[in-house]
Amino acid sequence: MAEVKDLNGLRRFAADKMQKVGLFETPRMFCDLYCLEPGQAQKAHSHGEADKVYLVLEGRAQIQVGAERFEVGPRQAVLAPAGSDHGVTNAGAERLVLYVFVAQDSGGGAPSKAGHQHDHGHRH
Amino acid sequence: MAEVKDLNGLRRFAADKMQKVGLFETPRMFCDLYCLEPGQAQKAHSHGEADKVYLVLEGRAQIQVGAERFEVGPRQAVLAPAGSDHGVTNAGAERLVLYVFVAQDSGGGAPSKAGHQHDHGHRH
Repeated sequence: MAEVKDLNGLRRFAADKMQKVGLFETPRMFCDLYCLEPGQAQKAHSHGEADKVYLVLEGRAQIQVGAERFEVGPRQAVLAPAGSDHGVTNAGAERLVLYVFVAQDSGGGAPSKAGHQHDHGHRH
Repeated sequence: MAEVKDLNGLRRFAADKMQKVGLFETPRMFCDLYCLEPGQAQKAHSHGEADKVYLVLEGRAQIQVGAERFEVGPRQAVLAPAGSDHGVTNAGAERLVLYVFVAQDSGGGAPSKAGHQHDHGHRH
């Protein structure tokens, strides 16, 4: 079934931590909004068989992929390929909203998002 | 390797047809900008094992998925799940820019994008 989402209406922030808002999910991918108040971050982590693409919708992001760090703003996108450590920080003074896409092998239809989150190897 | 793209600098339009600008590609996914002048369209087609997500960056899109039609604008996103006929038309008076993500099974690392394009079954 087709699904339609209005990202403006789904932005959601919290003082204690970054908010992740689920948009779409299939066996092959999922798509989220990440909403970060200034100073908030998603710590660097990796997943072996999933590629992640960040697109900045508003604010400024410091995105880490492997040993590299990128400062990006609206309409800039960053690919973190499978196996690379990656993380994001809102190092700016404004709120940060990212549109985040993760593609993974469907593994024959196994539950995708739950498996993904479980597989996060937080290395820090 | 990480990659960074600035979408503003990559927009490209042509009078004869919709322009598709490749952004990222891995065995599991690819990501493009679609740039449509008023009246231009990508005709409805389907791919069996690939999910597509459209995000409108500017302009207004009429997106068809199966028998449904959605009128969407900036920051609205539409999922066309694998197997569904889908297409897009710029029915407005302004230019339309879409950020389009396709997730597919990697098929053990076979070339992805070429295979995808070859598999397009244009049904109309």
